[in-house]
Amino acid sequence: MTTYNPPLKDIQFTLNEVANYPAIAALPGYEDATPDLIEAVLEEGGKFASRVLAPLNQIGDHEGAKWHDGEVTTPPGFKEAYRQFSENGWNGVGCETEFGGQGLPKLIGAVLQEMWKTANMGFSLGPLLTTGAVEALMLSGTEDLKHKYLPNMVSGKWTGTMNLTEPQAGSDLGLIRTKAVPQADGSYKISGQKIFITYGEHDLAENIIHLVLARTPTAPEGTRGISMFIVPKFLVNDDGSLGERNDVRCVSIEHKLGIHASPTCVLAYGDNGGATGYLVGQENRGLEYMFIMMNGARFAVGLEGISMAEGAYQKALAYAKERVQGRDIAGGKASVAIIKHPDVRRMLMLMKSQIEAMRSLAYYAGASLDLALKHPDEAERKKHQAFVDLMIPVVKGWSTETGIQLASLGVQIHGGMGYIEETGAAQYWRDSRIATIYEGTTGIQANDLLFRKIIRENGSTLRTVIGEMHHTISELSQQPGPDFAVIREALDRGVQAIMKAGAFFASTIMKDIKAVAAGAEPFLELMGIVAGGWQLARGAMAAQAKINAGETDAFYKAKIATTRFYADHVLSRADGLAYTVTNGAAGTLALADDDF
Amino acid sequence: MTTYNPPLKDIQFTLNEVANYPAIAALPGYEDATPDLIEAVLEEGGKFASRVLAPLNQIGDHEGAKWHDGEVTTPPGFKEAYRQFSENGWNGVGCETEFGGQGLPKLIGAVLQEMWKTANMGFSLGPLLTTGAVEALMLSGTEDLKHKYLPNMVSGKWTGTMNLTEPQAGSDLGLIRTKAVPQADGSYKISGQKIFITYGEHDLAENIIHLVLARTPTAPEGTRGISMFIVPKFLVNDDGSLGERNDVRCVSIEHKLGIHASPTCVLAYGDNGGATGYLVGQENRGLEYMFIMMNGARFAVGLEGISMAEGAYQKALAYAKERVQGRDIAGGKASVAIIKHPDVRRMLMLMKSQIEAMRSLAYYAGASLDLALKHPDEAERKKHQAFVDLMIPVVKGWSTETGIQLASLGVQIHGGMGYIEETGAAQYWRDSRIATIYEGTTGIQANDLLFRKIIRENGSTLRTVIGEMHHTISELSQQPGPDFAVIREALDRGVQAIMKAGAFFASTIMKDIKAVAAGAEPFLELMGIVAGGWQLARGAMAAQAKINAGETDAFYKAKIATTRFYADHVLSRADGLAYTVTNGAAGTLALADDDF
Repeated sequence: MTTYNPPLKDIQFTLNEVANYPAIAALPGYEDATPDLIEAVLEEGGKFASRVLAPLNQIGDHEGAKWHDGEVTTPPGFKEAYRQFSENGWNGVGCETEFGGQGLPKLIGAVLQEMWKTANMGFSLGPLLTTGAVEALMLSGTEDLKHKYLPNMVSGKWTGTMNLTEPQAGSDLGLIRTKAVPQADGSYKISGQKIFITYGEHDLAENIIHLVLARTPTAPEGTRGISMFIVPKFLVNDDGSLGERNDVRCVSIEHKLGIHASPTCVLAYGDNGGATGYLVGQENRGLEYMFIMMNGARFAVGLEGISMAEGAYQKALAYAKERVQGRDIAGGKASVAIIKHPDVRRMLMLMKSQIEAMRSLAYYAGASLDLALKHPDEAERKKHQAFVDLMIPVVKGWSTETGIQLASLGVQIHGGMGYIEETGAAQYWRDSRIATIYEGTTGIQANDLLFRKIIRENGSTLRTVIGEMHHTISELSQQPGPDFAVIREALDRGVQAIMKAGAFFASTIMKDIKAVAAGAEPFLELMGIVAGGWQLARGAMAAQAKINAGETDAFYKAKIATTRFYADHVLSRADGLAYTVTNGAAGTLALADDDF
Repeated sequence: MTTYNPPLKDIQFTLNEVANYPAIAALPGYEDATPDLIEAVLEEGGKFASRVLAPLNQIGDHEGAKWHDGEVTTPPGFKEAYRQFSENGWNGVGCETEFGGQGLPKLIGAVLQEMWKTANMGFSLGPLLTTGAVEALMLSGTEDLKHKYLPNMVSGKWTGTMNLTEPQAGSDLGLIRTKAVPQADGSYKISGQKIFITYGEHDLAENIIHLVLARTPTAPEGTRGISMFIVPKFLVNDDGSLGERNDVRCVSIEHKLGIHASPTCVLAYGDNGGATGYLVGQENRGLEYMFIMMNGARFAVGLEGISMAEGAYQKALAYAKERVQGRDIAGGKASVAIIKHPDVRRMLMLMKSQIEAMRSLAYYAGASLDLALKHPDEAERKKHQAFVDLMIPVVKGWSTETGIQLASLGVQIHGGMGYIEETGAAQYWRDSRIATIYEGTTGIQANDLLFRKIIRENGSTLRTVIGEMHHTISELSQQPGPDFAVIREALDRGVQAIMKAGAFFASTIMKDIKAVAAGAEPFLELMGIVAGGWQLARGAMAAQAKINAGETDAFYKAKIATTRFYADHVLSRADGLAYTVTNGAAGTLALADDDF
């Protein structure tokens, strides 16, 4: 059975000291979400995650979702857990109060998601997709559509999906072929096949609201001719009751490497004359709406990297303390727990330090998400939006890639037991593997970061961020002891590495766009490592402040030691990555296709 | 269905130009194994791998080995494939002709193993374990035992196993408890439980010869009290016919992350009075015999890293050429195959270059294995043995860690399809995950490399190898063009990084053994990267020599470009790793156990 201890102490520390939660609670609209209330909410959320969701994680993996004749059955226990999840109000935590949500800050929604995901990633995807659909409707739906669909989606009575992918249209949504033909009554007849639809069919809720990308007959080719439609599984009558079954059918579900509990559906629209759909927003602007909403989805997937690493870490740590094997290398005849072996400790520290770095960066970016939405000053909102836009591909790309590596270390620490499925370590690794793929692969995040977020604006936000990093570096100079000196130097070198890479891009973009693109992924990795180290360093200074103020809890000393470890073991990769960015294109682009 | 194209061109090149096969063929005893003969043998082996083994790879994964009431059934088709494998003589390829083997060089055995493993790793493990058992008996069995068991094991009529692990004794074999009580007739009664026994029970052959580590009643505690026993599944009569069923039973098989076709057995010895076993070699020297044999096993597992990466690469490359998605970043309206995207190309090059580096190092070390065995000059034998001893943990640890990373890239290149099991990309990743664990985890390889292979002899072999690397660096200076200049500089920096790490170990070992141990794994990674780059560079120079001699095949130019890519993308990590080795211990060792 999966056990999960919500890391509330580190979460609270990161929330308050790194992401400066008190400033979020002070934003207009969030006044009620006081730090005290949030502490209580997170404690309850942690209990739900550990007591209700975590016990179903392994059974969800083992049994998986099952398809039979168009119907999908979720694993044993999921239905009851989902009922409780909705009834307890967790589904609408981050949704607007207007439609029945709790209206809590996005940041708090993110923390809760981290916990759901660690406890049971397969379960968490249902509510995540619903939240995405709710946000898309909030952003671009008419009041009519909102009032008809949102209350039940926010409460969790109905769930939502996002229908983008088709067999020939994955990363390249311009190739979408699903058709939407306008009808006399203002509705549309939708027909086509969508694949990889998460929770596209299931038995958790009485209705499923599909958001579907499709083309109207007059739509231009490519990405500019895509519109967004609501296609409910059951049509909804004007009085809100459920009407006819719509013409959408789950043809099959995929047999996947992981997240077995989450049904990944092939949906056929319009096999019997066309599914009834309703246009969301304006025609041909579907992709634009999807992209606005996608920021949230990508951020959430970034959290999955953290979650899988956290779950893997907790399991590996428990095993390392309990498994007795070998003697202490410094001497002694007695067999010792393997945590005593320096290499096991190194692996645990790689996990711990990178989890804390990823969490710090994600929460810091999450806070900016709220500041971008709610800050009273428009210039501040803009500044934070720019920061969020820059950081989302980093949080998504870097955290998910790192999540896989750390889940792999979790397997490794278990030795042979890690390879046995019953142990549960392997599940984190398998589940983590999807997160670098869906909602845009790492390569796509890297291109988004470099071309859309940096080059398009000539690096202005990046320069601002580098300025903030320099500020942190100068603050680090004021801190006592050798650990901070090491941290300061490593961060300084990391920032220099980013600047070197940036200078290369600036001088190359007009001459050789392929050489720039060849460096995108190593640059994303570099940005993640350095930005994570930056936020970790801010946390270490906050910990030092606590110590200065007389705090004796070892937690604070450990924060500093963990950051120092990160400097020596992770930030130390920055130079090599900058080298690869600035020199690596020739090798990447040298071969003809047939020479591979 | 898995398709596999044996990379014979690269194999032949690496064999002849990097590992200098002609020198191996010239060794006494290998005269018949001329390069021409070997070319034919490898071609036949490649056909067997691609036509017989590869088509069973996915069904082996999907169906897995099945346990019922003590019997194990291998997946459909495995029995017939094994029959053909044995009949064609592949089982005894590297075994001595005295007992019916082909007596081919170890190096050739390794190349064939690479092909079996890529085609079907689950299948390959049966013959691999048999070979290991054959070698252990060759080394330490009496003539009687050899004549009784070896001919049928070499022919493949019987298979062999290695029984080391017990629930409480994994990496720490000193904790073994299985008992061996001497009987009046000179045999022993064996009782105890062994776990993780690969092909410990199956339906491929009529008998299974278990080599079992156990303790006699008078044995000293710990590793010095372990003896090795032969325990056949069916006792063998003096006339060679099969006798009674022995008291060993397969209690269950494990449900694993990968290599599903390979039954991983729990074996119970002596539940009904004791299994009959026969001492191999001298009492209490079992671990020593096992370790001699383990060099071969670790080398073979290192090949698994190469194999899984090769399989993943072939599949990803085919997909990248066929999957059309997105436009060329340099312009054009048409959708293109994803191999045109710089980041996909970067991933393919990461795979290609590291596969070739790993193969080069493994074959070069494999050649030394033969030179250590057969060279007429004792000093040469010793020199090569020292090189092999140094390099085996590198080949094992580095290639298997890299294998996982590259198999992961294979999944990534497939995008969403990579996460679907039917695609087959995920199987390579899951199968690859065991190789950093069994036959000694990467941490154990790292300790072996650093403490047993380097520090114990004050670094003398390492210094010799560094001298040889410097020789290559000076040869690189003689090569034309900018690629070689980059390669030379990167290799030079890599060697300096090794020297920095070495100097740190030398100055720290007497003061702080834990700080040394904390750097063992990053050092192993560094050694792998640099040694692989060294051999790749030797290959690039051989390719240049071909070009100088008028060869126009693009293969040779690609070798140089691939090495240059490796210099910029892989060797570039060397400085960071050296930094971690020399500075990273403080962070690794800072926390108390309870602070994690």
